[in-house]
Amino acid sequence: MAFQGKKLINNPDDVVTEFIEGLVETYPGLQYLDGFPQIKVVLRADVERGAYDKVAVISGGGSGHEPAHAGFVGPGMLTAAVSGDVFASPPVDSILAAIRAVTGPMGCLLIVKNYTGDRLNFGLAAEQAKSEGYKMEMVIVGDDCALPPPRGIAGRRGLAGTVLVHKVAGAAADAGLSLADVAAEAKHASEVVGTMGVALSVCTLPGQVTSDRLGPKQMELGLGIHGEPGVAVVELQPVDVVVEHVLKQILSQETQYLPITRGSNAVLLINGLGATPIMELMIAARKAVPELQLEYGIAVDRVYTGTLMTSLDMAGLSITIMKSDENILKRLDAPTKAPAWPVGSEGNRPPAKFPVPVPPSPSMKDDEILAQPQELSKQGCILEAAIEASATEIINLKDSLNEWDSKVGDGDCGTTMYRGATAILEDMKKRYPMNDAAGTINEIGATIRRVMGGTSGILYDILFKAAYASLKQSRTVTANEWADALEASVAAVSKYGGASVGYRTMLDALIPASTVMKQRLKAGEDPVTAFIASSEAASAGAESTKQMQAKAGRSSYIAPDLLASIPDPGAMAAAAWYRAAALAVKNKLHGSKS
Amino acid sequence: MAFQGKKLINNPDDVVTEFIEGLVETYPGLQYLDGFPQIKVVLRADVERGAYDKVAVISGGGSGHEPAHAGFVGPGMLTAAVSGDVFASPPVDSILAAIRAVTGPMGCLLIVKNYTGDRLNFGLAAEQAKSEGYKMEMVIVGDDCALPPPRGIAGRRGLAGTVLVHKVAGAAADAGLSLADVAAEAKHASEVVGTMGVALSVCTLPGQVTSDRLGPKQMELGLGIHGEPGVAVVELQPVDVVVEHVLKQILSQETQYLPITRGSNAVLLINGLGATPIMELMIAARKAVPELQLEYGIAVDRVYTGTLMTSLDMAGLSITIMKSDENILKRLDAPTKAPAWPVGSEGNRPPAKFPVPVPPSPSMKDDEILAQPQELSKQGCILEAAIEASATEIINLKDSLNEWDSKVGDGDCGTTMYRGATAILEDMKKRYPMNDAAGTINEIGATIRRVMGGTSGILYDILFKAAYASLKQSRTVTANEWADALEASVAAVSKYGGASVGYRTMLDALIPASTVMKQRLKAGEDPVTAFIASSEAASAGAESTKQMQAKAGRSSYIAPDLLASIPDPGAMAAAAWYRAAALAVKNKLHGSKS
Repeated sequence: MAFQGKKLINNPDDVVTEFIEGLVETYPGLQYLDGFPQIKVVLRADVERGAYDKVAVISGGGSGHEPAHAGFVGPGMLTAAVSGDVFASPPVDSILAAIRAVTGPMGCLLIVKNYTGDRLNFGLAAEQAKSEGYKMEMVIVGDDCALPPPRGIAGRRGLAGTVLVHKVAGAAADAGLSLADVAAEAKHASEVVGTMGVALSVCTLPGQVTSDRLGPKQMELGLGIHGEPGVAVVELQPVDVVVEHVLKQILSQETQYLPITRGSNAVLLINGLGATPIMELMIAARKAVPELQLEYGIAVDRVYTGTLMTSLDMAGLSITIMKSDENILKRLDAPTKAPAWPVGSEGNRPPAKFPVPVPPSPSMKDDEILAQPQELSKQGCILEAAIEASATEIINLKDSLNEWDSKVGDGDCGTTMYRGATAILEDMKKRYPMNDAAGTINEIGATIRRVMGGTSGILYDILFKAAYASLKQSRTVTANEWADALEASVAAVSKYGGASVGYRTMLDALIPASTVMKQRLKAGEDPVTAFIASSEAASAGAESTKQMQAKAGRSSYIAPDLLASIPDPGAMAAAAWYRAAALAVKNKLHGSKS
Repeated sequence: MAFQGKKLINNPDDVVTEFIEGLVETYPGLQYLDGFPQIKVVLRADVERGAYDKVAVISGGGSGHEPAHAGFVGPGMLTAAVSGDVFASPPVDSILAAIRAVTGPMGCLLIVKNYTGDRLNFGLAAEQAKSEGYKMEMVIVGDDCALPPPRGIAGRRGLAGTVLVHKVAGAAADAGLSLADVAAEAKHASEVVGTMGVALSVCTLPGQVTSDRLGPKQMELGLGIHGEPGVAVVELQPVDVVVEHVLKQILSQETQYLPITRGSNAVLLINGLGATPIMELMIAARKAVPELQLEYGIAVDRVYTGTLMTSLDMAGLSITIMKSDENILKRLDAPTKAPAWPVGSEGNRPPAKFPVPVPPSPSMKDDEILAQPQELSKQGCILEAAIEASATEIINLKDSLNEWDSKVGDGDCGTTMYRGATAILEDMKKRYPMNDAAGTINEIGATIRRVMGGTSGILYDILFKAAYASLKQSRTVTANEWADALEASVAAVSKYGGASVGYRTMLDALIPASTVMKQRLKAGEDPVTAFIASSEAASAGAESTKQMQAKAGRSSYIAPDLLASIPDPGAMAAAAWYRAAALAVKNKLHGSKS
C-alpha cells in the first residue's frame, strides 16, 4: 500500500512552528522564543532571564514526538525544550538560545536522546555556553532494549524512557539541588531505564507519501521513533503475547541492559506511539503489571499509561521499565505543572486490587418469599380484575398489533406486548402482593423488565417504576393518588424517552388519559366515571395517531403517505389495556351495567 | 478499502473489562465494582459506601470513547462512571450498582449524553433509585451542532462538550452545593455548549472488518462518535479551512444553538477522536483561537487541547465552544485529580502572546570590529605560522582525502576540509586577534562553523570551542596550557561524538597526540620536542586506522576487506594539520633545522 498520509495540517513545512503556536495558546504557563522559524524553543513563561535560581533542565531533539518534548516544560520538569524540524536535530543556535534564555547562576543540565545529530548539536551548544561562562552538564539517554549491544559509537537509541529521566531531573532541580547532583540523578536514572516498542503501522511524514512496509496482518518489533525499521516483522499477535515478548526482551539476561532482578522494584510506562487509542494502552498495562509481578518477581511501584513520546501518527506502543528506589519515586511523585506529564499515577499502589462488591438494593426483597396473599382485600380484588382484564386484552390484540407494526415498524409490537402480558398473568398468581397496590405496581415493573426487552420494555419499566415511587408515599391509595401516579409515570416516560403528544407513541394515548383523569377528579366527578372518561380519551388519542407523522422510533424512517390510516401500535396497545382496566374496575364496583 | 482493523487487543469481547483493569492498575485512586463482565463501573477508591458527604456525579454510556468516561473519575469531577459494551448503552443494573455504591445523603446527579438507549437506561435506573429512597437528578447533554434542529425526539447528539459539563458539575459538587444547585449548574452548562467533528477515517470496532467509506483524499464533516456517517463527505482541506468551517457551523446564526454573540466570552476544546496526533490538535488550536477572537469578537478564556472523547481509533477532531462566565471558569479551573482532565490550561490567558526575544550571547562581539593586530607579538607570529602551515597542508591534501573517502565514505572529506582551511586562511588575515591565542582559537571555531557543515564541521567546532573554554582561563598561554587545551578538546569530541581510540575516526590521531604531549611535558622535555614527538604519534595513529574496522560514520556500513589498507581520511587529515603545525612551530623557534 502506498498512499498520501491524511493529516489535519496546513503547509507541511510549518507543522512544527504551528504546533508550538497552538501549544502556547493552550497553556498560559508556556512561552516561546522569537526567531521563528529557525528557532523553535518553548520555555516556562515564569522564568526570568538570567535570574532563575534553580538548575535549568533543557531537553529537545527532532519534532514528531509530541507531546515530547515541549509538553514536558513546566515547573518541576523541563525549563525549556528545543525542537528541530520533524525527525531532525535542532540547530546549535536554537539550543544556545534556549540555554541563554533560562540558565541562571545554578547552571544548566541538557538531557539528550542518543542520536548522533542530537549529541553533536547539543554538545556543541554546551561547549559554546561553557565558553560564555555558563555552568553546563549533559546526560545522554539510550534506553532502547530491542537490539543487541552495538559495537560502535552509535549506541542504544533514546526512546520513551527519556521522559522518566526528564521527570527525575526536573524534580531534583526543583528541589534546589546543585548542577552536579541534578546531573548525577539524571545519569543514574538513564542507567536504570529500558524501553522497547512495537508498531502496527509506520508513520507518515507531513506532506509525504507513505509506503507501508507492513502487511494488513503484520506488526513490527523493536522499532525506533523515527520510522526506522524494527528488528523483525511478525504476524499480529494478541496484545498479551506482545507484552510478554517485549518484557522478556527488556529484562533479558543476555543483554543485561537493566540492573533489575527478582525482588527489585520498578515503575512501568506504557507509551502510545501517536495513533494508539488509550483503550489499547490500558489493555497492555493490565497484562504488564501482573506479568512483571508474577513472572519476574518485580514489585511495580507506579504505572504510567499514556501518549508521551510518539512517532507522528504511528499505531503501536512502547513499554519502558525503570528500576525504582525511594529517591526515584520521590522525584516521579513530585508535583509538576508540565501539561503532558501523566496525572493520577503518583502514590503507592495497593499491592493488589480487588474489586469492590456490588452493593445490593437497600430495599431488595430477594430474601422475602413473595406470594399472593391468601385472602384479597376489596382493593386487592379490584386490582386483580383490572390486571387480568388488561393483560387479556393485550393477549387478544397480539395479531392486530403485529400487523400494524409490520406496516410502520419492525412487526414485533404484538409479540413483545404479548410476552409481557402472559408473564404478568403468571407472576400475579404466584407472587404479586395484591393487597399492597404500590408493591403490586412495582412487581409488574419487575416482570416487564425480566421478559419484555427492547425500547418498549424499558419505557413500560420506567412507567411502572415512576408509578411505584409515587404510590409508595401513601398507605391507602385513593383515586387522586392513582391519578398522581399516572401523571408522574407519564412525565417520566416523556422525560427519559423524549417524546410528547403528537410524536406518534404510547404517550398519545396516556397523556390525554392522564389529563382527563385529573380534570374530572378536580371537578368532583365520581372516580369510576372519571376513569371511564379518561380511558375514552386514551382510545381517541390512540386513534388520532393515524394522522400523525412519526418523530421517533423506526416509524420516523417511513414515508408519510404509507403511515396515513395506520395507527401507532404502541398507542393502540396502551389505550387498549388502559380501557380494559377502566371497564374492569367499573364492573367490579358497579356490576356489569355498561 | 476493506480491511481487518489492526488493534493491540486480545479477545474483542473483552476490550472493555480489560481496559478497566488496566485503568485501575494505572491509577491508585480508582477502583472498580465486582460483577464483571456484566457490570463495568469505575469509581473513586476513597468514597465510602453510603457515607459520601457531597453530591455524587455519575456519567457513562457505551465504551469506545476512552478516556471518557472512566478517565474523568476523581475528586473534583465524576464520582463514578458506568461503561457499556463498545458503543452500547450500559444496562440498568450497572447504573443502579454505581448509584448505590457512591450516593450518600446529598443525592446523585446523572449526566447523560443524548442517545435514546442512554436516556432510557439511565432514566430507568434513576427511577429505580428514587423508589429506593435516593435523591436523584438527571441532566441530558446534546451539544452536536452539525445537523439542523431535528424534528423528533432523537434530538441533538451528546459529544465532547459533555466532558466540560462533567467538570462544571463535578466542581460544583466538590464545592459542597446541594443536588438542586449542582443539577442547575450542569443544566446551564449543557445549554451553552456546542460541538462539531470532522474525521479523516472511520473507526473500526474490535474484531470487525472496516469498510472505509472515505477515499484516500476525503474527509467527513459533522460525524458522530459511534461511526455514524457525517453530514457531508468533502475533499481533504488544510486544517485552517476546516477550523473556519466548523466554527461557522457551531456559531451559526441560523440554528442559534449557542447564545454566544460578539463580545461574549468562551472556552475552547480541541478534542482528538482517537488516532489524531497531538501535533495536529495543537495546529487546529493555533487557528481556532485567533479566528474566534478576530472574526467573531469572542474572548477566549481557556483552551483545552487533547484527546478526551474519542471514537475508538478514528482519525479526526472535534471543536467545542462553551460560553463562559465567572462561575463556569471557577468550576473549570477548580483542581481535580481525574486523570484525563487536561492539566495546565487553568488560569487567565494573556490577551495575546508575543514571543520572548532571542537572548544574545553575553560575550557576543558583534559590535567590536575584529581585525588582525597591526603588530604581532612573538606568540602571535608563531601562531600565524602554525595556522598557515596547517591550512596549507590540508589544502594540498584535498585530493588524497577525497580519494580515500570515496573508497570508505561519501568522498567529500577533502572538499569539506579544504573549505574550512581556505576560509581560515582568509579570516586569519582579516579578523583573527592573533596576539590573543584563546581568542584566535575561538575564531577558528567560528570560521569552521560558518563554512564546513556536516558531522566533521560540528566535531571540529566542538574541538575548538572546548580548547577556547580551556585556554581562556589563563592570560599567557604556556606549553602546559596548550596541552591541557588539547586534552579538553579531545575529551569533548569523544564525549559528544561517542568515539574513542580504535573507532577509525580523527580521534585515532588526536588521542595519541594528546597522550604523548602530556607524557613528554610531564617528563620535563622541551615543549617543541614534545610537540614534534606528539605529532609523530598522531601520524602513527592515523596510519594505524588502515587495520581498523569502522564503528562509526558511513564506513561502518562497508565490508572489512574493502576497508583494509585504506586509512581513515578524518584521522589522516587531523594528523596532517597537527604535524604541519608542530613543524612550523619548530621552524619558527629553532630555525629550519629539521
